[in-house]
Amino acid sequence: MNNKLLPSPAALRLLLFPDTVRIADDRLTIAGHALASLADSYGTPLYVYDRATLDNAVEAYRSSLRVHYPGPSQIVYAGKAFLCQAMARWTQQHDLWVDCSSEGEMAMAIGGGVPREHILVHGVNKSGADLQAALRRAGTLVVDHLAELQHIAALLESTPLSPLPDLWLRLLPGVAVSTHHAHTQTGQQTSKFGMTPEELLEAARLCRERRLPLRGIHFHQGSNFRDPAPLIPAIELGLDAAREIGFPEAWHFSPGGGWGVAYHEDELPHPSIEHYVREVARALVEGCRARRLALPCLHLEPGRSLVARAGVAVYRVGAVKRRMSKTWLLIDGGMADNPRYALYGARYSCLPASAPQRECREHVSIAGPYCESGDILIEDLPMPKVAEGECLAVSMSGAYQLSMSSNYNGARRPAVLWLEEGRAQLIQRRETLEDLLRRDLLAQEP
Amino acid sequence: MNNKLLPSPAALRLLLFPDTVRIADDRLTIAGHALASLADSYGTPLYVYDRATLDNAVEAYRSSLRVHYPGPSQIVYAGKAFLCQAMARWTQQHDLWVDCSSEGEMAMAIGGGVPREHILVHGVNKSGADLQAALRRAGTLVVDHLAELQHIAALLESTPLSPLPDLWLRLLPGVAVSTHHAHTQTGQQTSKFGMTPEELLEAARLCRERRLPLRGIHFHQGSNFRDPAPLIPAIELGLDAAREIGFPEAWHFSPGGGWGVAYHEDELPHPSIEHYVREVARALVEGCRARRLALPCLHLEPGRSLVARAGVAVYRVGAVKRRMSKTWLLIDGGMADNPRYALYGARYSCLPASAPQRECREHVSIAGPYCESGDILIEDLPMPKVAEGECLAVSMSGAYQLSMSSNYNGARRPAVLWLEEGRAQLIQRRETLEDLLRRDLLAQEP
Repeated sequence: MNNKLLPSPAALRLLLFPDTVRIADDRLTIAGHALASLADSYGTPLYVYDRATLDNAVEAYRSSLRVHYPGPSQIVYAGKAFLCQAMARWTQQHDLWVDCSSEGEMAMAIGGGVPREHILVHGVNKSGADLQAALRRAGTLVVDHLAELQHIAALLESTPLSPLPDLWLRLLPGVAVSTHHAHTQTGQQTSKFGMTPEELLEAARLCRERRLPLRGIHFHQGSNFRDPAPLIPAIELGLDAAREIGFPEAWHFSPGGGWGVAYHEDELPHPSIEHYVREVARALVEGCRARRLALPCLHLEPGRSLVARAGVAVYRVGAVKRRMSKTWLLIDGGMADNPRYALYGARYSCLPASAPQRECREHVSIAGPYCESGDILIEDLPMPKVAEGECLAVSMSGAYQLSMSSNYNGARRPAVLWLEEGRAQLIQRRETLEDLLRRDLLAQEP
Repeated sequence: MNNKLLPSPAALRLLLFPDTVRIADDRLTIAGHALASLADSYGTPLYVYDRATLDNAVEAYRSSLRVHYPGPSQIVYAGKAFLCQAMARWTQQHDLWVDCSSEGEMAMAIGGGVPREHILVHGVNKSGADLQAALRRAGTLVVDHLAELQHIAALLESTPLSPLPDLWLRLLPGVAVSTHHAHTQTGQQTSKFGMTPEELLEAARLCRERRLPLRGIHFHQGSNFRDPAPLIPAIELGLDAAREIGFPEAWHFSPGGGWGVAYHEDELPHPSIEHYVREVARALVEGCRARRLALPCLHLEPGRSLVARAGVAVYRVGAVKRRMSKTWLLIDGGMADNPRYALYGARYSCLPASAPQRECREHVSIAGPYCESGDILIEDLPMPKVAEGECLAVSMSGAYQLSMSSNYNGARRPAVLWLEEGRAQLIQRRETLEDLLRRDLLAQEP
């Protein structure tokens, strides 16, 4: 361990926090709310979402699309990153579409007021109920494979529906993006997702035969990448397929989502949204021109790059264990609300919620209360000397944490606040002990 | 891929299923219930627990203790493996103790009728609420570190309680067992858990000073191990500490749990419970004799080795993707109900619920419906040709699956059945769409 005096990490780490982060009265604030005070009022672990950061991220996508893509475009929020009814309602203030992976996510979106035409349904193995719900209540249904399309055709033959959602076909491009972990790659040849180009053309033939409203092509190559180069051959492949299919003038093209973010100061700067949009747009414009295709409506599906930095997780330190071999800060959440270290070895950073500008004095590892060695949030991070009872603010906590959270060790899922200047609104209440027992049935003697 | 004809895997794989597994009318049955029929009645994914397997596992521990350990003993069921109120009630039919990691698990145990004296509370960073609940409602509280003990002493000074739970101290033995994944090791020197021998003696001094009921020593070295050798030096270390402390005649010694199981046919035979108990008992008896210590009550804390094989997960195949590079069976559950492949690369096996004795015809990978490449249950398993709509029974699904389950991608957690001959009882209902929205608050415009 390198325990020599290190400068305050605050300046750099603030770049991992929401746009409204400030240090006021020596306390870390988001949208003017001191995180330590929110922790006192609402308890910990506590998740907060900063509305301004979300708004700004949408605007970064919108303005980049305006500058770089001459055709129509649409931003589709990836619900799997984090969805609840309040979040769904926010998406509609920006006219976003919402990508739903199941009937469950559709229920959240609809509950938050997302209209039919803004609901897009994905999924590699949609259940019968998912398909029924999508056919009745979604604007767009992305077909993953030929058998699913046959299933849809059979459903519609027995029960004709109108209006029908637009159908898009999911292409397996055979090219993955470069990510930190194999489990976040999806575009490779051996992936479970989508159709090979041959299967896709077969699906298009079936759509024509059955007069199904085939309107677009989608693919997705992985999650949390920062080099857009592998998108280019996939876009080319998608456009080749589009030319073969022969879409009408108004057609849709979605190269998925997955644009990355920096989770740790070592990964800064954050990958540029404009760079990503420009590269995608350029490849699409040039590819369409070369194939004499009308410019499609370009759909981008950001989840992480829209919402990760807007979220902060606030924990309280319950114990500090200082030993020769290691210093542990033990906090009151971890793997149950954020399994990303355990799943992918994700690297996070954090700041104390109070006096965040103290100099670093030691390297610490930060772990949760759960009976599992993988229940770690951060390993070997330079930190000031933090005492029991202090709160830590873990940045970049908005995406793929709560949506993957569990009740492991009897943990109750945290409260979630929506922050604006002058207003903090509870949008998900903390789980109760009663919630943990709600599904239990004890009617008969076992 | 090796697609040559392989013999039926059923004979070997049946050893991974509950004790009551049979093939009757060409269907896989547990306690006389055909899994395919249960899937039709209750839907999929469906988890079933076989009571006879649980009873037999307890008896294997009990009889091994009778044969090999001359002192008193107690089996403590590790609630973190799988707990609900019905399971808690079953533990009391065998007079088991239940190890609870939080107020949440205590609520499940108490709801299932576990009496105070059978509740043991663990945890590396118990919250104030956890400690209050443990002091008031548990029979035994395992203290993880010195500051926690100071916290307990302060609580009791301000609010004296009677009766008090017995206090045990958690030793960090500095020796881990050999496991498949670093995240399942807990005993190593750099672990977040427990106290070094020096810290432990300091804690014992504090207990004496404050007249706290110090009654035992606990340690835990890891999860899913099959070589008991690393237990021996840890037991020696624990006994050295016990001699220094000078316990009364009736004292408690717990070398934790974590005894392993075979998840895949390549790992058979299952590690022998008797072998484990014999090695622990021998080391304890010899160690006590050498130190002239009275034999303690020996506590074993099985979770996985009691409950993993009793549980079977039943899924339905929604799609089959056969390509040159790979064959995928896509099922209706996965990472959300069982994250163990994603977390640890765990290797599972399975059989078709109908006609399970068909010869293997191909190697398949089995993945769930979630939008994530880590959503795999089994990679590269020899299987018969399985068709869409068939059910698969994944064995060894009783431990650390549902207890870690999430609502990722809007998944609803599965129904759970308790099976006995002639009776199938729903002990946890499937989550509903309403459950997914229960914590959402939309009162104000965001």
